[in-house]
Amino acid sequence: MQMPLNRIVDLMKKQDIDIVFLNNPRNVFYVSSYMSDPHERILAAILFKDEKPLLFTPALEENDAKKIASEYDIFSYLDTENPWEIIVAKLQEKNVPLKRWAIEKDFLTVERLEALKEAFPSAAFDFNISTTIQDMRLVKNPQELAIMKKAGYWADQALQIGAKALREGITEAEVVAEIEYQMKRRGISEMSFDTMVLFGENAASPHGTPGEKKLQKNQFVLFDLGVMYEGYASDVTRTLFFGDEPTEHQKEIYNLVLSAHDEAMAAVRVGMKASALDAVARNVIAVGGYGKYFNHRLGHGLGQGVHEFPSIMEGNDMEILDGMCFSIEPGIYLPGDVGVRVEDCGYASPEGFVSFTETPTGIATYLELIK
Amino acid sequence: MQMPLNRIVDLMKKQDIDIVFLNNPRNVFYVSSYMSDPHERILAAILFKDEKPLLFTPALEENDAKKIASEYDIFSYLDTENPWEIIVAKLQEKNVPLKRWAIEKDFLTVERLEALKEAFPSAAFDFNISTTIQDMRLVKNPQELAIMKKAGYWADQALQIGAKALREGITEAEVVAEIEYQMKRRGISEMSFDTMVLFGENAASPHGTPGEKKLQKNQFVLFDLGVMYEGYASDVTRTLFFGDEPTEHQKEIYNLVLSAHDEAMAAVRVGMKASALDAVARNVIAVGGYGKYFNHRLGHGLGQGVHEFPSIMEGNDMEILDGMCFSIEPGIYLPGDVGVRVEDCGYASPEGFVSFTETPTGIATYLELIK
Repeated sequence: MQMPLNRIVDLMKKQDIDIVFLNNPRNVFYVSSYMSDPHERILAAILFKDEKPLLFTPALEENDAKKIASEYDIFSYLDTENPWEIIVAKLQEKNVPLKRWAIEKDFLTVERLEALKEAFPSAAFDFNISTTIQDMRLVKNPQELAIMKKAGYWADQALQIGAKALREGITEAEVVAEIEYQMKRRGISEMSFDTMVLFGENAASPHGTPGEKKLQKNQFVLFDLGVMYEGYASDVTRTLFFGDEPTEHQKEIYNLVLSAHDEAMAAVRVGMKASALDAVARNVIAVGGYGKYFNHRLGHGLGQGVHEFPSIMEGNDMEILDGMCFSIEPGIYLPGDVGVRVEDCGYASPEGFVSFTETPTGIATYLELIK
Repeated sequence: MQMPLNRIVDLMKKQDIDIVFLNNPRNVFYVSSYMSDPHERILAAILFKDEKPLLFTPALEENDAKKIASEYDIFSYLDTENPWEIIVAKLQEKNVPLKRWAIEKDFLTVERLEALKEAFPSAAFDFNISTTIQDMRLVKNPQELAIMKKAGYWADQALQIGAKALREGITEAEVVAEIEYQMKRRGISEMSFDTMVLFGENAASPHGTPGEKKLQKNQFVLFDLGVMYEGYASDVTRTLFFGDEPTEHQKEIYNLVLSAHDEAMAAVRVGMKASALDAVARNVIAVGGYGKYFNHRLGHGLGQGVHEFPSIMEGNDMEILDGMCFSIEPGIYLPGDVGVRVEDCGYASPEGFVSFTETPTGIATYLELIK
């Protein structure tokens, strides 16, 4: 992971930035390989043009950080200490100019900025490095793509486990528990977000919460899930028909969503606009007569998390680049009736979209998964 | 939950604040009862002195929010819309003065503050409401305490499940999976933090991660876990001796930690300083000769999360009030050797400390739990 660090140092030289202060744990991971969620404590990577970078951690994490972030000079603070005093003292030791700071404006809190301003009253905190790092993180290198493919493999496994757990009378919460239990047994200790398993009309709420609803025959079951694997997230959605024979209405909705999904997947080209990709799927559903029931963007980026850039939506004219990772997840939600979504994540390549997940699609998917 | 809203409105009148902008989801929950994690999207409660409060949500959540936050005027935005434009338009409709804003300086990002400043260039954003709400949240009312007691009950259940899962050769990750699976089966869909199960010397790293280490006889097993229950967190730690007969060394460390825990619990008085309580436990361990191996604060507050105020530590002279909730969790960590921590959470009352958890302590706890 030396590469991102070098690119930031190049930027610092070009933009005449003296110091970069990163405290978004995902950005800290990106530049140092050290991953931790410090909650209300402070974790920060502090970068200079010509000095060894610093990693500042809570005292409890210092040893763990030293094992991983070997290129960094690591220092820490106890809960009883004022972290800002320690940071300031360390920076003063460096004896380098600290006039222009780059900060993460989308993450740094007003309180923390005020603490920095108080300590360095004549410094400028005008450069927003968030966008730069977002842009860097947008395009994944082959090593990252290989990890994300493995994360996708485990999402496929989780879907299969979920499908096999289905039986009449089981609750949504029980299916979630079974999936996460089996994943943990296989060494996957963290899901990339709260696993979603929704039965029947519950799936018509795109942000529904799995609960005590019991599965009945001839219902759809919506699974939306993913895992964290070596610091990267996967994310997949399948809507399985649990029963003998779907109604015409169920088939119509399902097949319309699937067409939108498939046409969007096939339309992915390096160089196209994100908004144009969204339009492909949206048109399919609109022509089918359900446009107003597809009430969210087509997709989101993913990488270290499941809600990164790019946003695949109307109005976002960002160009899709080779190695950009994102989801394609059209859906139709008829309140009180039925909710269907089909999602795969993958990356754009000169050969088109390459999916990280391989679970089959189609209204008979359930039968294929329980074989 | 009308009460917090009234208290904030009183404060607004006293401090001549025109508008309160809350976007910390926990504070939004506190004033509106609507709980959601909007990730990178915006969720905000906007309060006025004499106007109906507003709740701003992502479009996907509008219906859910309406069911819960009935006292609010709810409005929302699509991913394709600029949320700030919608907020500004809504505020302008109100036609009330918006000169002095109260913001959450420990949560609001620099970017969001810049967006607000751009929209309201002549307004002042100087009042930090975070501290006020923290103070309000420090003391729980009887209804909140009753919920937290139930959250504690489920943490006790989880410990028992974990104890019963122990056997030679099982891995830490498998025990975690078993606990979370059984909790989900019982309807507890969310733990309050990543469940920690650490064997032997792994427990000497206070922030260790459960992995593939296999349990051997005559090792300590450290459990640190909690659940979310109706929006409130529990948190408990037990270190169980798995085996026939602990060594003198194991007994010495365990009993020293337990004495520190028990003496601190017994010392809790309304009106004492947080630092004084920390000192009680710290002295016990220092006198026992292991002072430098108790390298974290005695405790943290809890409520809607597990890392709230008050911090029970040296240097924090905050007074402990009736109804304040916090953990008491001394530990000794001998790197490469052994780690022991015993933790209960509860609240201060005129009768002393009232624990939310009831799992027994003592080096024979394991045998009691598997009975």
